[in-house]
Amino acid sequence: MDDFEFLSPTKIIFGRNTVEKVGLEAARWGRKALLHYGGKSALKSGLIQRVKDSLIAQDIKVIEVGGVVPNPRLALVRECIDLVRKEKIDLIIAVGGGSVIDSAKGIAMGAVYEGDVWDFYKGKIPEAALPIGVVLTIPAAGSEASNSSVVTDTDGEGGWRKLGAKGEAYKPRFAILDPELTYTLPAYQTAAGGVDIMAHVMERYFTNTPDVDLTSRLCEGVLKTMIQQLPIALTDPENYAARAQIMWASTLAHNGLLDTGRATDWASHRMEHELSAKWDVTHGAGLAVMFPAWMKYVSPKKTKQFVEFGNRVFGLDVDVYHPERTAREGISRLEAFFKSLGMPTSIRDLVEGEVTDDDLRSMTERCAINPDGTLGGLVKLTREDIYQIYKLAY
Amino acid sequence: MDDFEFLSPTKIIFGRNTVEKVGLEAARWGRKALLHYGGKSALKSGLIQRVKDSLIAQDIKVIEVGGVVPNPRLALVRECIDLVRKEKIDLIIAVGGGSVIDSAKGIAMGAVYEGDVWDFYKGKIPEAALPIGVVLTIPAAGSEASNSSVVTDTDGEGGWRKLGAKGEAYKPRFAILDPELTYTLPAYQTAAGGVDIMAHVMERYFTNTPDVDLTSRLCEGVLKTMIQQLPIALTDPENYAARAQIMWASTLAHNGLLDTGRATDWASHRMEHELSAKWDVTHGAGLAVMFPAWMKYVSPKKTKQFVEFGNRVFGLDVDVYHPERTAREGISRLEAFFKSLGMPTSIRDLVEGEVTDDDLRSMTERCAINPDGTLGGLVKLTREDIYQIYKLAY
Repeated sequence: MDDFEFLSPTKIIFGRNTVEKVGLEAARWGRKALLHYGGKSALKSGLIQRVKDSLIAQDIKVIEVGGVVPNPRLALVRECIDLVRKEKIDLIIAVGGGSVIDSAKGIAMGAVYEGDVWDFYKGKIPEAALPIGVVLTIPAAGSEASNSSVVTDTDGEGGWRKLGAKGEAYKPRFAILDPELTYTLPAYQTAAGGVDIMAHVMERYFTNTPDVDLTSRLCEGVLKTMIQQLPIALTDPENYAARAQIMWASTLAHNGLLDTGRATDWASHRMEHELSAKWDVTHGAGLAVMFPAWMKYVSPKKTKQFVEFGNRVFGLDVDVYHPERTAREGISRLEAFFKSLGMPTSIRDLVEGEVTDDDLRSMTERCAINPDGTLGGLVKLTREDIYQIYKLAY
Repeated sequence: MDDFEFLSPTKIIFGRNTVEKVGLEAARWGRKALLHYGGKSALKSGLIQRVKDSLIAQDIKVIEVGGVVPNPRLALVRECIDLVRKEKIDLIIAVGGGSVIDSAKGIAMGAVYEGDVWDFYKGKIPEAALPIGVVLTIPAAGSEASNSSVVTDTDGEGGWRKLGAKGEAYKPRFAILDPELTYTLPAYQTAAGGVDIMAHVMERYFTNTPDVDLTSRLCEGVLKTMIQQLPIALTDPENYAARAQIMWASTLAHNGLLDTGRATDWASHRMEHELSAKWDVTHGAGLAVMFPAWMKYVSPKKTKQFVEFGNRVFGLDVDVYHPERTAREGISRLEAFFKSLGMPTSIRDLVEGEVTDDDLRSMTERCAINPDGTLGGLVKLTREDIYQIYKLAY
């Protein structure tokens, strides 16, 4: 078990009709809010109006900026930073899923920084940020309590560039989680969100750090819950119990708890980022393709980790004489589960349009982000390894 | 799944030699510290000096008050409140286990309250408190990140009175968890602490709230880890991995995470409090006696909960035709586990001196604390039920 520091300062307000509490919570943190959201569904459903009413009832001034898209854009973050400064906004309320929250984080740190916000996505650690409050509508990214923000620059040279920032300063001060808000999510988004949640857990679960039974078991608990609850939510979209457990799992999967004391491996996430930067695919759907490919490629070198996964997450008996069979079977079960959710199983299924060998090669180059030109930690992947995993996923 | 709010604002600093960080962390919160601790072992080991050195290196003035005893005393809390006011102390550093931290919490809320601190133990909710920092030496009570403080009034009419306060205001701002500090704990204290941790989890686990699979599985993960690691720590006291996992489990068991969205049942804890208020026994040892007695008494009415416990925590096959057998076997396994740790299995084993039937009756009266004169929630225990459980434990 490794040394660690852990602080999750986000106050969680969970349950039915908790949206009405946004004004009271927000009033602790500011007097003038940027109300940030995505597309028309939140407007049509009346959610934005409910949030606005609650804020205004607490005498909070509200300036709205909607239009955040999946794989949120750097250009909008920059625009909003200018607006926040001009209007002396002191609080950001993000209503949406990971894209809206990540965009809000960019604005929150950029607004109090003299340089260009993109610096943070290139590795600078933010020291301060405006306070953020969240009303969550999509359980997936876990951004409501995480230290990460992922933004896409569509104007860079050589195509889109999707990068992630890290920082404690912009962790949301509060997050409102009302499972009923997720009843109307399309099945594809429910499933893709579920895969994203499971990926966040698995990126922590597969590790070389010894003696981390406690957090391994917590990871297994979240994974088993997702495997149990996701099919219920897809069959019965208004099942409160399933929606609630998925929603709370999304936060716990990514608030830092599950990796306390253990090394993580974000290779699959990184490889997926290249896919969604290039073809604008849904992040979770991309993960449903990339994660099993990564597992198949690395498991022969890390049999124990994958035997434990098959045994504890899918309840497989351990074949002690042929442990590699248990490892492989666990991966097959996961792949079959993703498929049963309606997720794609290959890059060809995932992407509209042609993906060439040159595409795989150029994505490979962008993935090799370790200082020594590799990717990941469970197994350090060389460029050739990365390329082979893309081929496996193809 | 019930609605909930959850905020765990305690910064955890975990690992070897983290004690040296206490000064830096403390300097964020105050300039003059009450250094609060227990007996001579922390002095002899040099720990108090290390903490003092680290505080003084950050120009923090230090006033020491040691002498906190297990089942910490109200009288000392009151004395320290006077001292804190007189000396204008603005920060409390608690070095020890639950008793020292609980005493520090009493001081922290009492110092900023006009009335008598005992009011909080009689049910008043504190609105403010001085900041507290913790250097943990005994993993057990989970007080380093909990909202509770238990203090004993030895001067009350009718004998000792041990009561618990609840409040968010005094949750520690930071807690330093160095597993190496626990290497020298006597075996009895390691075991009793382990039982306390497991009890904290089980008081959350056994619930009537439906659809709480996620937190149930997290509870099971912590319990299984304790069952795995406690014997290792007892056999090999300097096993870092075991000590570390027990220490982190102690915090997670009681920081509020495991009861998010579910009703809890503190009947066993309450019944134990009467034992330790009367005979000053070690809290965890008392729980090792009271918890299985409570389980045996209530399990026939709540078979499903105890079947799940036996199946998932002890890996028992479910006897679907005779589920009560699986339920009973799970409880037997737990009792045998506590015994294997060297814990007492009956009140007679636990207490020095005679315990009369009148004693059981008078403890029963003090336990019936629900507004309707019952105790607990999984099964609402009447006075007769409570008395029968004490008899079972006797």
